Amino acid sequence: MDFQVVKVKEDILQDNNQKANELRAYLKSKHIYFINVMASPGSGKTTLLVNLINKLKQNFNIGVMEADIDGDVDAERISSLTGVRAIQIHTSGACHLTAQMVEDAIKEFDIEGLDLLFLENVGNLVCPAEFDTGSNINMMLLSVPEGDDKPLKYPLMFEVSNIAVITKIDTAEIFDFDFDKCYQNIKKRNEKAEIFKVSALEDEGIAPLLCHIKKLVNNR
Amino acid sequence: MDFQVVKVKEDILQDNNQKANELRAYLKSKHIYFINVMASPGSGKTTLLVNLINKLKQNFNIGVMEADIDGDVDAERISSLTGVRAIQIHTSGACHLTAQMVEDAIKEFDIEGLDLLFLENVGNLVCPAEFDTGSNINMMLLSVPEGDDKPLKYPLMFEVSNIAVITKIDTAEIFDFDFDKCYQNIKKRNEKAEIFKVSALEDEGIAPLLCHIKKLVNNR
Repeated sequence: MDFQVVKVKEDILQDNNQKANELRAYLKSKHIYFINVMASPGSGKTTLLVNLINKLKQNFNIGVMEADIDGDVDAERISSLTGVRAIQIHTSGACHLTAQMVEDAIKEFDIEGLDLLFLENVGNLVCPAEFDTGSNINMMLLSVPEGDDKPLKYPLMFEVSNIAVITKIDTAEIFDFDFDKCYQNIKKRNEKAEIFKVSALEDEGIAPLLCHIKKLVNNR
Repeated sequence: MDFQVVKVKEDILQDNNQKANELRAYLKSKHIYFINVMASPGSGKTTLLVNLINKLKQNFNIGVMEADIDGDVDAERISSLTGVRAIQIHTSGACHLTAQMVEDAIKEFDIEGLDLLFLENVGNLVCPAEFDTGSNINMMLLSVPEGDDKPLKYPLMFEVSNIAVITKIDTAEIFDFDFDKCYQNIKKRNEKAEIFKVSALEDEGIAPLLCHIKKLVNNR
Protein backbone atom coordinates (compact mmCIF):
# COMPACT_ATOMS: atom_id res chain seq x y z
CA MET A 1 0.00 0.00 0.00
CA ASP A 2 1.70 3.17 -1.09
CA PHE A 3 1.63 6.53 0.65
CA GLN A 4 -1.12 8.03 -1.48
CA VAL A 5 -3.51 5.21 -0.69
CA VAL A 6 -2.72 5.32 3.03
CA LYS A 7 -3.33 9.10 3.07
CA VAL A 8 -6.69 8.73 1.29
CA LYS A 9 -7.71 6.06 3.78
CA GLU A 10 -6.70 8.25 6.73
CA ASP A 11 -8.80 11.11 5.34
CA ILE A 12 -11.78 8.80 4.83
CA LEU A 13 -11.52 7.46 8.39
CA GLN A 14 -11.13 10.97 9.84
CA ASP A 15 -14.20 12.26 7.96
CA ASN A 16 -16.09 9.17 9.07
CA ASN A 17 -15.18 9.67 12.74
CA GLN A 18 -16.43 13.23 12.63
CA LYS A 19 -19.71 12.21 11.01
CA ALA A 20 -20.07 9.39 13.56
CA ASN A 21 -19.66 11.83 16.46
CA GLU A 22 -22.30 14.14 14.97
CA LEU A 23 -24.67 11.21 14.55
CA ARG A 24 -24.08 10.04 18.13
CA ALA A 25 -24.88 13.54 19.44
CA TYR A 26 -28.03 13.69 17.29
CA LEU A 27 -29.30 10.31 18.52
CA LYS A 28 -28.50 11.29 22.12
CA SER A 29 -30.62 14.43 21.67
CA LYS A 30 -33.45 12.10 20.57
CA HIS A 31 -32.79 9.84 23.58
CA ILE A 32 -32.12 6.84 21.31
CA TYR A 33 -29.54 4.18 22.21
CA PHE A 34 -27.74 2.76 19.19
CA ILE A 35 -26.10 -0.70 19.03
CA ASN A 36 -23.95 -1.75 16.05
CA VAL A 37 -23.91 -5.54 15.53
CA MET A 38 -20.96 -7.01 13.64
CA ALA A 39 -19.83 -10.55 12.73
CA SER A 40 -18.80 -12.91 9.93
CA PRO A 41 -21.37 -14.05 7.37
CA GLY A 42 -23.66 -16.70 8.82
CA SER A 43 -22.66 -16.26 12.45
CA GLY A 44 -26.27 -15.82 13.53
CA LYS A 45 -26.70 -12.03 13.75
CA THR A 46 -30.29 -11.98 12.48
CA THR A 47 -31.35 -14.98 14.57
CA LEU A 48 -29.92 -13.43 17.75
CA LEU A 49 -31.51 -10.07 16.98
CA VAL A 50 -34.93 -11.68 16.46
CA ASN A 51 -34.60 -13.47 19.82
CA LEU A 52 -33.45 -10.34 21.69
CA ILE A 53 -35.96 -7.99 20.08
CA ASN A 54 -38.91 -10.25 20.88
CA LYS A 55 -37.94 -9.97 24.56
CA LEU A 56 -36.85 -6.32 24.56
CA LYS A 57 -39.90 -4.98 22.71
CA GLN A 58 -42.01 -5.23 25.88
CA ASN A 59 -39.76 -2.61 27.44
CA PHE A 60 -38.57 -0.48 24.56
CA ASN A 61 -39.58 0.92 21.20
CA ILE A 62 -37.11 -0.68 18.80
CA GLY A 63 -35.98 -0.04 15.24
CA VAL A 64 -33.60 -2.14 13.11
CA MET A 65 -31.35 -1.22 10.19
CA GLU A 66 -30.23 -4.22 8.14
CA ALA A 67 -27.14 -3.67 6.02
CA ASP A 68 -26.35 -5.96 3.14
CA ILE A 69 -24.39 -5.81 -0.05
CA ASP A 70 -27.40 -7.16 -1.87
CA GLY A 71 -30.76 -8.78 -1.14
CA ASP A 72 -33.66 -7.83 1.15
CA VAL A 73 -33.77 -11.09 3.07
CA ASP A 74 -32.98 -9.83 6.56
CA ALA A 75 -35.14 -6.71 6.94
CA GLU A 76 -38.24 -8.67 5.86
CA ARG A 77 -37.32 -11.53 8.19
CA ILE A 78 -36.71 -9.28 11.21
CA SER A 79 -39.89 -7.34 10.58
CA SER A 80 -42.14 -10.37 10.11
CA LEU A 81 -40.67 -12.26 13.08
CA THR A 82 -40.68 -9.39 15.59
CA GLY A 83 -43.19 -6.82 14.35
CA VAL A 84 -40.73 -3.96 14.82
CA ARG A 85 -39.81 -1.49 12.12
CA ALA A 86 -36.88 -2.59 9.96
CA ILE A 87 -35.18 -0.87 7.03
CA GLN A 88 -32.79 -2.45 4.51
CA ILE A 89 -29.56 -0.64 3.63
CA HIS A 90 -27.72 -1.72 0.47
CA THR A 91 -24.02 -0.89 0.46
CA SER A 92 -23.69 -1.26 -3.35
CA GLY A 93 -20.77 -3.62 -3.04
CA ALA A 94 -19.04 -1.92 -0.10
CA CYS A 95 -17.74 -4.21 2.62
CA HIS A 96 -18.75 -2.02 5.56
CA LEU A 97 -21.09 0.77 6.60
CA THR A 98 -19.95 4.34 7.04
CA ALA A 99 -21.55 6.81 9.44
CA GLN A 100 -22.80 8.69 6.36
CA MET A 101 -24.67 5.61 5.12
CA VAL A 102 -26.26 5.25 8.57
CA GLU A 103 -27.26 8.90 8.58
CA ASP A 104 -28.81 8.56 5.11
CA ALA A 105 -30.77 5.51 6.27
CA ILE A 106 -31.98 7.28 9.41
CA LYS A 107 -33.34 10.11 7.29
CA GLU A 108 -35.55 7.63 5.43
CA PHE A 109 -36.52 5.84 8.62
CA ASP A 110 -38.97 7.29 11.10
CA ILE A 111 -36.91 7.10 14.32
CA GLU A 112 -39.13 9.47 16.34
CA GLY A 113 -40.02 7.83 19.66
CA LEU A 114 -37.52 4.98 19.42
CA ASP A 115 -35.61 3.95 22.56
CA LEU A 116 -33.27 1.50 20.91
CA LEU A 117 -31.86 1.25 17.41
CA PHE A 118 -30.00 -1.83 16.18
CA LEU A 119 -27.76 -1.87 13.13
CA GLU A 120 -26.91 -5.25 11.62
CA ASN A 121 -23.69 -4.49 9.77
CA VAL A 122 -22.38 -6.31 6.65
CA GLY A 123 -21.18 -9.85 7.42
CA ASN A 124 -17.44 -9.28 7.63
CA LEU A 125 -14.97 -9.72 10.48
CA VAL A 126 -12.51 -7.18 9.07
CA CYS A 127 -13.65 -3.91 7.47
CA PRO A 128 -16.69 -2.90 9.57
CA ALA A 129 -14.38 -2.72 12.60
CA GLU A 130 -12.54 0.21 11.03
CA PHE A 131 -15.60 2.41 10.60
CA ASP A 132 -17.33 4.07 13.55
CA THR A 133 -21.04 3.95 12.71
CA GLY A 134 -22.06 6.49 15.36
CA SER A 135 -23.22 3.70 17.67
CA ASN A 136 -23.08 3.84 21.47
CA ILE A 137 -21.60 0.37 21.61
CA ASN A 138 -20.37 -2.32 19.26
CA MET A 139 -21.60 -5.87 19.81
CA MET A 140 -19.72 -8.55 17.88
CA LEU A 141 -20.69 -12.20 17.44
CA LEU A 142 -18.35 -15.15 17.05
CA SER A 143 -20.07 -18.41 16.17
CA VAL A 144 -18.73 -21.70 17.53
CA PRO A 145 -18.22 -23.22 14.03
CA GLU A 146 -15.78 -20.39 13.20
CA GLY A 147 -13.37 -21.57 15.90
CA ASP A 148 -11.93 -20.32 19.20
CA ASP A 149 -8.79 -18.87 17.55
CA LYS A 150 -10.51 -16.07 15.64
CA PRO A 151 -9.56 -13.24 18.10
CA LEU A 152 -5.93 -13.99 17.25
CA LYS A 153 -6.56 -13.63 13.52
CA TYR A 154 -9.00 -10.71 13.40
CA PRO A 155 -7.70 -8.47 16.20
CA LEU A 156 -9.36 -5.13 15.41
CA MET A 157 -12.92 -6.50 15.51
CA PHE A 158 -12.37 -7.73 19.06
CA GLU A 159 -10.52 -4.57 20.10
CA VAL A 160 -13.38 -2.24 19.11
CA SER A 161 -16.23 -4.40 20.47
CA ASN A 162 -17.67 -3.68 23.92
CA ILE A 163 -19.65 -6.92 23.85
CA ALA A 164 -18.54 -10.26 22.38
CA VAL A 165 -21.26 -12.89 22.04
CA ILE A 166 -20.27 -16.48 21.32
CA THR A 167 -23.18 -17.94 19.33
CA LYS A 168 -24.36 -21.44 18.34
CA ILE A 169 -22.94 -22.87 21.62
CA ASP A 170 -25.18 -25.93 21.25
CA THR A 171 -22.69 -27.11 18.58
CA ALA A 172 -19.58 -26.70 20.78
CA GLU A 173 -18.97 -30.44 21.13
CA ILE A 174 -19.16 -31.13 17.41
CA PHE A 175 -16.66 -28.38 16.63
CA ASP A 176 -14.37 -29.10 19.59
CA PHE A 177 -14.67 -25.49 20.70
CA ASP A 178 -12.63 -24.51 23.79
CA PHE A 179 -14.51 -21.75 25.66
CA ASP A 180 -11.66 -21.07 28.12
CA LYS A 181 -9.21 -20.63 25.27
CA CYS A 182 -11.66 -18.40 23.41
CA TYR A 183 -12.24 -16.21 26.48
CA GLN A 184 -8.47 -15.84 26.90
CA ASN A 185 -8.07 -14.96 23.23
CA ILE A 186 -10.81 -12.32 23.42
CA LYS A 187 -9.41 -10.84 26.65
CA LYS A 188 -5.97 -10.67 25.02
CA ARG A 189 -7.47 -8.30 22.44
CA ASN A 190 -9.79 -6.41 24.77
CA GLU A 191 -9.61 -6.80 28.53
CA LYS A 192 -12.82 -4.85 29.06
CA ALA A 193 -15.00 -6.84 26.64
CA GLU A 194 -18.16 -8.27 28.19
CA ILE A 195 -18.42 -11.86 26.96
CA PHE A 196 -21.65 -13.83 26.67
CA LYS A 197 -22.36 -17.29 25.28
CA VAL A 198 -25.69 -18.12 23.71
CA SER A 199 -27.67 -20.36 21.45
CA ALA A 200 -30.36 -18.10 20.03
CA LEU A 201 -32.19 -20.99 18.37
CA GLU A 202 -32.23 -23.06 21.58
CA ASP A 203 -32.95 -19.89 23.62
CA GLU A 204 -29.95 -20.68 25.81
CA GLY A 205 -27.85 -18.10 27.70
CA ILE A 206 -29.96 -15.15 26.49
CA ALA A 207 -30.97 -13.81 29.95
CA PRO A 208 -27.57 -12.34 31.03
CA LEU A 209 -27.10 -10.63 27.65
CA LEU A 210 -30.66 -9.31 27.75
CA CYS A 211 -30.12 -7.95 31.26
CA HIS A 212 -26.91 -6.22 30.18
CA ILE A 213 -28.56 -4.57 27.17
CA LYS A 214 -31.56 -3.43 29.26
CA LYS A 215 -29.19 -1.81 31.75
CA LEU A 216 -27.35 0.01 28.96
CA VAL A 217 -30.55 1.30 27.36
CA ASN A 218 -32.06 2.33 30.71
CA ASN A 219 -28.92 4.29 31.57
CA ARG A 220 -28.77 6.03 28.20
CA MET B 1 -19.05 7.14 -1.46
CA ASP B 2 -18.17 10.31 -3.32
CA PHE B 3 -16.60 10.58 -6.76
CA GLN B 4 -13.03 11.04 -5.53
CA VAL B 5 -13.12 7.81 -3.54
CA VAL B 6 -14.67 5.85 -6.42
CA LYS B 7 -11.96 7.17 -8.75
CA VAL B 8 -9.15 6.19 -6.37
CA LYS B 9 -10.66 2.73 -6.02
CA GLU B 10 -10.92 2.35 -9.80
CA ASP B 11 -7.26 3.30 -10.15
CA ILE B 12 -6.24 0.84 -7.45
CA LEU B 13 -8.20 -1.99 -9.09
CA GLN B 14 -6.80 -1.16 -12.53
CA ASP B 15 -3.21 -1.15 -11.22
CA ASN B 16 -3.94 -4.39 -9.43
CA ASN B 17 -5.33 -6.08 -12.55
CA GLN B 18 -2.20 -5.15 -14.50
CA LYS B 19 0.09 -6.48 -11.78
CA ALA B 20 -2.03 -9.66 -11.56
CA ASN B 21 -1.68 -10.25 -15.30
CA GLU B 22 2.11 -9.82 -15.10
CA LEU B 23 2.25 -12.24 -12.20
CA ARG B 24 0.13 -14.80 -14.04
CA ALA B 25 2.45 -14.60 -17.05
CA TYR B 26 5.52 -14.96 -14.81
CA LEU B 27 4.11 -18.06 -13.06
CA LYS B 28 3.12 -19.54 -16.42
CA SER B 29 6.71 -19.13 -17.61
CA LYS B 30 7.76 -21.11 -14.52
CA HIS B 31 5.09 -23.74 -15.27
CA ILE B 32 3.40 -23.15 -11.89
CA TYR B 33 -0.37 -23.40 -11.45
CA PHE B 34 -1.74 -20.93 -8.90
CA ILE B 35 -5.01 -21.39 -6.95
CA ASN B 36 -6.44 -18.59 -4.79
CA VAL B 37 -8.58 -19.92 -1.91
CA MET B 38 -11.16 -17.55 -0.42
CA ALA B 39 -13.87 -17.85 2.24
CA SER B 40 -15.28 -16.43 5.47
CA PRO B 41 -13.31 -16.76 8.70
CA GLY B 42 -13.57 -20.25 10.13
CA SER B 43 -15.06 -21.89 7.04
CA GLY B 44 -12.38 -24.56 7.00
CA LYS B 45 -9.86 -23.27 4.43
CA THR B 46 -6.78 -24.55 6.26
CA THR B 47 -8.35 -27.92 7.10
CA LEU B 48 -9.38 -28.50 3.48
CA LEU B 49 -5.94 -27.43 2.22
CA VAL B 50 -4.19 -29.85 4.60
CA ASN B 51 -6.43 -32.69 3.38
CA LEU B 52 -5.95 -31.85 -0.32
CA ILE B 53 -2.20 -31.23 -0.09
CA ASN B 54 -1.55 -34.53 1.69
CA LYS B 55 -3.12 -36.27 -1.32
CA LEU B 56 -1.76 -33.99 -4.06
CA LYS B 57 1.84 -33.97 -2.84
CA GLN B 58 2.41 -37.46 -4.27
CA ASN B 59 1.85 -36.00 -7.74
CA PHE B 60 3.01 -32.42 -7.47
CA ASN B 61 5.54 -30.14 -5.79
CA ILE B 62 3.37 -27.80 -3.75
CA GLY B 63 3.88 -24.46 -2.02
CA VAL B 64 1.43 -22.55 0.18
CA MET B 65 1.09 -18.85 0.96
CA GLU B 66 -0.99 -18.16 4.05
CA ALA B 67 -2.40 -14.65 4.32
CA ASP B 68 -3.58 -13.28 7.63
CA ILE B 69 -4.10 -9.90 9.16
CA ASP B 70 -2.14 -11.07 12.17
CA GLY B 71 -0.79 -14.31 13.68
CA ASP B 72 1.36 -17.14 12.28
CA VAL B 73 -1.03 -19.92 13.16
CA ASP B 74 -1.84 -21.24 9.68
CA ALA B 75 1.55 -21.38 7.94
CA GLU B 76 3.01 -23.38 10.83
CA ARG B 77 -0.03 -25.66 10.89
CA ILE B 78 0.03 -26.31 7.13
CA SER B 79 3.76 -26.93 7.16
CA SER B 80 3.77 -29.29 10.12
CA LEU B 81 0.74 -31.27 8.91
CA THR B 82 1.76 -31.66 5.27
CA GLY B 83 5.51 -31.20 5.10
CA VAL B 84 5.24 -28.77 2.19
CA ARG B 85 6.77 -25.30 2.16
CA ALA B 86 4.50 -22.58 3.56
CA ILE B 87 5.05 -18.86 3.97
CA GLN B 88 2.99 -16.46 6.11
CA ILE B 89 1.89 -13.14 4.63
CA HIS B 90 0.71 -10.43 7.02
CA THR B 91 -1.57 -7.84 5.45
CA SER B 92 -1.01 -5.25 8.23
CA GLY B 93 -4.71 -4.78 8.79
CA ALA B 94 -5.79 -4.96 5.15
CA CYS B 95 -8.88 -7.03 4.43
CA HIS B 96 -7.61 -8.62 1.22
CA LEU B 97 -4.47 -9.46 -0.73
CA THR B 98 -3.32 -7.47 -3.73
CA ALA B 99 -1.31 -8.94 -6.60
CA GLN B 100 1.60 -6.79 -5.37
CA MET B 101 1.51 -8.45 -1.94
CA VAL B 102 1.54 -11.86 -3.64
CA GLU B 103 4.50 -10.83 -5.80
CA ASP B 104 6.40 -9.59 -2.74
CA ALA B 105 5.73 -12.89 -0.97
CA ILE B 106 6.84 -14.92 -3.99
CA LYS B 107 10.15 -13.04 -4.02
CA GLU B 108 10.84 -14.24 -0.47
CA PHE B 109 9.63 -17.75 -1.22
CA ASP B 110 11.64 -20.22 -3.23
CA ILE B 111 9.09 -21.21 -5.90
CA GLU B 112 11.63 -22.84 -8.25
CA GLY B 113 10.43 -26.32 -9.20
CA LEU B 114 6.89 -25.93 -7.85
CA ASP B 115 3.98 -27.34 -9.85
CA LEU B 116 1.20 -25.95 -7.72
CA LEU B 117 0.95 -22.87 -5.53
CA PHE B 118 -1.96 -22.32 -3.14
CA LEU B 119 -2.84 -18.96 -1.63
CA GLU B 120 -5.07 -18.97 1.43
CA ASN B 121 -6.54 -15.47 1.32
CA VAL B 122 -7.73 -13.41 4.32
CA GLY B 123 -10.96 -14.79 5.83
CA ASN B 124 -13.50 -12.45 4.27
CA LEU B 125 -16.40 -13.09 1.91
CA VAL B 126 -16.37 -9.54 0.51
CA CYS B 127 -13.12 -7.71 -0.27
CA PRO B 128 -10.80 -10.47 -1.54
CA ALA B 129 -13.26 -11.04 -4.40
CA GLU B 130 -12.48 -7.58 -5.78
CA PHE B 131 -8.74 -8.12 -6.11
CA ASP B 132 -7.27 -10.39 -8.78
CA THR B 133 -4.30 -12.10 -7.09
CA GLY B 134 -2.74 -13.34 -10.33
CA SER B 135 -4.17 -16.82 -9.74
CA ASN B 136 -5.24 -19.20 -12.50
CA ILE B 137 -8.46 -19.97 -10.69
CA ASN B 138 -10.37 -18.86 -7.62
CA MET B 139 -11.70 -21.54 -5.28
CA MET B 140 -14.19 -20.33 -2.68
CA LEU B 141 -15.50 -22.24 0.32
CA LEU B 142 -18.91 -21.89 1.92
CA SER B 143 -19.33 -23.78 5.17
CA VAL B 144 -22.68 -25.35 6.05
CA PRO B 145 -23.01 -23.39 9.35
CA GLU B 146 -22.92 -20.13 7.37
CA GLY B 147 -26.18 -21.02 5.63
CA ASP B 148 -27.44 -21.81 2.12
CA ASP B 149 -28.51 -18.19 1.43
CA LYS B 150 -25.00 -16.70 1.32
CA PRO B 151 -24.70 -16.52 -2.50
CA LEU B 152 -27.66 -14.10 -2.41
CA LYS B 153 -25.94 -11.84 0.10
CA TYR B 154 -22.32 -11.91 -1.10
CA PRO B 155 -22.74 -12.02 -4.89
CA LEU B 156 -19.28 -10.99 -6.12
CA MET B 157 -17.44 -13.78 -4.27
CA PHE B 158 -19.56 -16.37 -6.06
CA GLU B 159 -19.36 -14.56 -9.40
CA VAL B 160 -15.55 -14.57 -9.48
CA SER B 161 -15.06 -18.13 -8.21
CA ASN B 162 -14.48 -20.97 -10.67
CA ILE B 163 -14.90 -23.54 -7.92
CA ALA B 164 -17.32 -23.38 -4.98
CA VAL B 165 -16.75 -25.96 -2.24
CA ILE B 166 -19.44 -26.47 0.38
CA THR B 167 -17.57 -27.54 3.54
CA LYS B 168 -18.50 -29.16 6.89
CA ILE B 169 -21.30 -31.12 5.18
CA ASP B 170 -21.36 -33.57 8.10
CA THR B 171 -23.21 -30.84 10.04
CA ALA B 172 -25.92 -30.25 7.39
CA GLU B 173 -28.70 -31.80 9.46
CA ILE B 174 -27.95 -29.73 12.56
CA PHE B 175 -27.97 -26.51 10.56
CA ASP B 176 -30.95 -27.41 8.38
CA PHE B 177 -28.87 -26.74 5.26
CA ASP B 178 -30.66 -27.15 1.93
CA PHE B 179 -28.13 -28.29 -0.70
CA ASP B 180 -30.55 -27.92 -3.63
CA LYS B 181 -31.35 -24.35 -2.64
CA CYS B 182 -27.66 -23.60 -2.15
CA TYR B 183 -26.76 -25.02 -5.58
CA GLN B 184 -29.49 -22.89 -7.16
CA ASN B 185 -28.26 -19.80 -5.32
CA ILE B 186 -24.67 -20.40 -6.45
CA LYS B 187 -25.74 -21.04 -10.07
CA LYS B 188 -27.79 -17.83 -9.99
CA ARG B 189 -24.52 -15.95 -9.39
CA ASN B 190 -22.29 -18.05 -11.60
CA GLU B 191 -23.69 -20.61 -14.00
CA LYS B 192 -20.26 -22.03 -14.77
CA ALA B 193 -19.14 -22.60 -11.18
CA GLU B 194 -18.02 -26.15 -10.43
CA ILE B 195 -19.64 -27.08 -7.12
CA PHE B 196 -18.29 -29.69 -4.69
CA LYS B 197 -19.44 -30.74 -1.23
CA VAL B 198 -16.99 -32.06 1.33
CA SER B 199 -16.22 -32.72 4.93
CA ALA B 200 -12.46 -32.38 5.14
CA LEU B 201 -12.33 -33.65 8.73
CA GLU B 202 -14.42 -36.74 7.90
CA ASP B 203 -12.56 -37.12 4.58
CA GLU B 204 -15.89 -37.15 2.76
CA GLY B 205 -16.43 -36.00 -0.84
CA ILE B 206 -12.77 -35.14 -1.40
CA ALA B 207 -12.16 -37.44 -4.42
CA PRO B 208 -14.13 -35.48 -7.08
CA LEU B 209 -12.54 -32.18 -6.01
CA LEU B 210 -9.10 -33.79 -5.98
CA CYS B 211 -9.67 -35.20 -9.45
CA HIS B 212 -10.76 -31.79 -10.77
CA ILE B 213 -7.68 -30.04 -9.32
CA LYS B 214 -5.33 -32.72 -10.69
CA LYS B 215 -6.83 -32.23 -14.14
CA LEU B 216 -6.36 -28.46 -13.94
CA VAL B 217 -2.74 -28.75 -12.82
CA ASN B 218 -1.91 -31.41 -15.39
CA ASN B 219 -3.36 -29.24 -18.18
CA ARG B 220 -1.48 -26.13 -17.08
